[in-house]
Amino acid sequence: MPFTTTRRVEFGDTDMAGIMHFSNFFRFMEVAETDFLHSLGMSVSWWTDGVKWGFPRVSVSCDFTRPARFEDVLTIAVVVERLGTKSVTYRFDFGNQHGDPVATGRITTVLCRTTAAHQFESTEIPAEFRAKLEEQVA
Amino acid sequence: MPFTTTRRVEFGDTDMAGIMHFSNFFRFMEVAETDFLHSLGMSVSWWTDGVKWGFPRVSVSCDFTRPARFEDVLTIAVVVERLGTKSVTYRFDFGNQHGDPVATGRITTVLCRTTAAHQFESTEIPAEFRAKLEEQVA
Amino acid sequence: MPFTTTRRVEFGDTDMAGIMHFSNFFRFMEVAETDFLHSLGMSVSWWTDGVKWGFPRVSVSCDFTRPARFEDVLTIAVVVERLGTKSVTYRFDFGNQHGDPVATGRITTVLCRTTAAHQFESTEIPAEFRAKLEEQVA
Amino acid sequence: MPFTTTRRVEFGDTDMAGIMHFSNFFRFMEVAETDFLHSLGMSVSWWTDGVKWGFPRVSVSCDFTRPARFEDVLTIAVVVERLGTKSVTYRFDFGNQHGDPVATGRITTVLCRTTAAHQFESTEIPAEFRAKLEEQVA
Repeated sequence: MPFTTTRRVEFGDTDMAGIMHFSNFFRFMEVAETDFLHSLGMSVSWWTDGVKWGFPRVSVSCDFTRPARFEDVLTIAVVVERLGTKSVTYRFDFGNQHGDPVATGRITTVLCRTTAAHQFESTEIPAEFRAKLEEQVA
Repeated sequence: MPFTTTRRVEFGDTDMAGIMHFSNFFRFMEVAETDFLHSLGMSVSWWTDGVKWGFPRVSVSCDFTRPARFEDVLTIAVVVERLGTKSVTYRFDFGNQHGDPVATGRITTVLCRTTAAHQFESTEIPAEFRAKLEEQVA
Repeated sequence: MPFTTTRRVEFGDTDMAGIMHFSNFFRFMEVAETDFLHSLGMSVSWWTDGVKWGFPRVSVSCDFTRPARFEDVLTIAVVVERLGTKSVTYRFDFGNQHGDPVATGRITTVLCRTTAAHQFESTEIPAEFRAKLEEQVA
Repeated sequence: MPFTTTRRVEFGDTDMAGIMHFSNFFRFMEVAETDFLHSLGMSVSWWTDGVKWGFPRVSVSCDFTRPARFEDVLTIAVVVERLGTKSVTYRFDFGNQHGDPVATGRITTVLCRTTAAHQFESTEIPAEFRAKLEEQVA
């Protein structure tokens, strides 16, 4: 069973077409990624010994099946689709409270050290994190 | 030469990594799409004879080459990559003020009538619009 | 005891200063308002007999005491500060997971009918809603 | 004559009520503040000698007169309403392309040094900046 979380579509997430603005699906994916990483004792951004770590995105996509509307409660299933040396590719399957599929998205991120001046240097995923993520590969 | 527009990265477009939040690239694509359609005398949403028309998205993606930062002025080149009976696929090439490539995105939209209750019905692109878009196919 | 809800600060809610972008406090207020109205069996937008109702904002404000940061879980207490014939003024008190005050905001909304063409007409709050809101006046 | 800038309401700025979401007025104010500061050779965030400076917000408000809609081009007049030792209060008057008033907002900011760990320390506005801002006091 994949990790699953939920998030409600808020009024401010909608646009004048009466549906969730498509860009907000990526915000929802990031929330689901944070929930997923929390469930493993990890996060998307943290400090260790004065070094800031993060997961900038290198490639993202989303296919939309059905609109999401105000007050819909979306279920988001998260799996690791591919685990590289430095990168993780997640797949996010969105459904609504009626059990209908809504969208499927993907985010590929690369682990990076960040300097104080916001420069990024990609780095290998530490063995401890890798072990946790490997268990979640679909 | 493709249609080109520009947009500055605002403070509110950034995130705590010090770069433009990745979801905002899709907002920038939509702005560029609006500018592009305006240049053809069209828009992304309009009313005719009591019917509301629009272009809901069915598939979107973005590949990121280089971060965009606060006060960067991004150049966005827009081309029609594919023109279907009911759908349009745009490609957006982002560069920064230094001439560096930043990102490449794609949006596939389907022309729809929208009812007052925000239901969508896909429909063929009228000949007049098709003629204008065909001239922009890359 | 006022109505209270919680919401986590997401990565996409932050800006390059490393804190929640100030405009997002208003999005959080709206989420808290929705939660509050749901607790009374109401909402911020609904349809009855082909008429769309809503609560456009006429005046909003926020005073910030302390930054909110990524992964902070904010507690938001909601009270009705003033109930007019057509308007409601809410006060929202934000605190963080350490019990520190973070911000205090206010939103004044007016009940409106909305036409299909998105025109607004202010209207008196029905007795049934008024009775529910009156019980929540601070 | 106050400093004036313009910004178009984008599709992604709207909500399901068919108007610009109220929180986006604050994003527009920040864009106008950036344009205003640029016109004086300043910015809202910068680095000098390894120190990061910025203007976190301590108090903001907005009164709404009339909805802003997709493709409206808003004119935003910016004045310094009050200049304190460490703080600046701006007023923003929004109008639309028809010359109608739309909203009036205010932002009070405090000049701060920011550490690498995103801690803020308020500081006096340097004489050079103060001189430029004083000329803009309404």
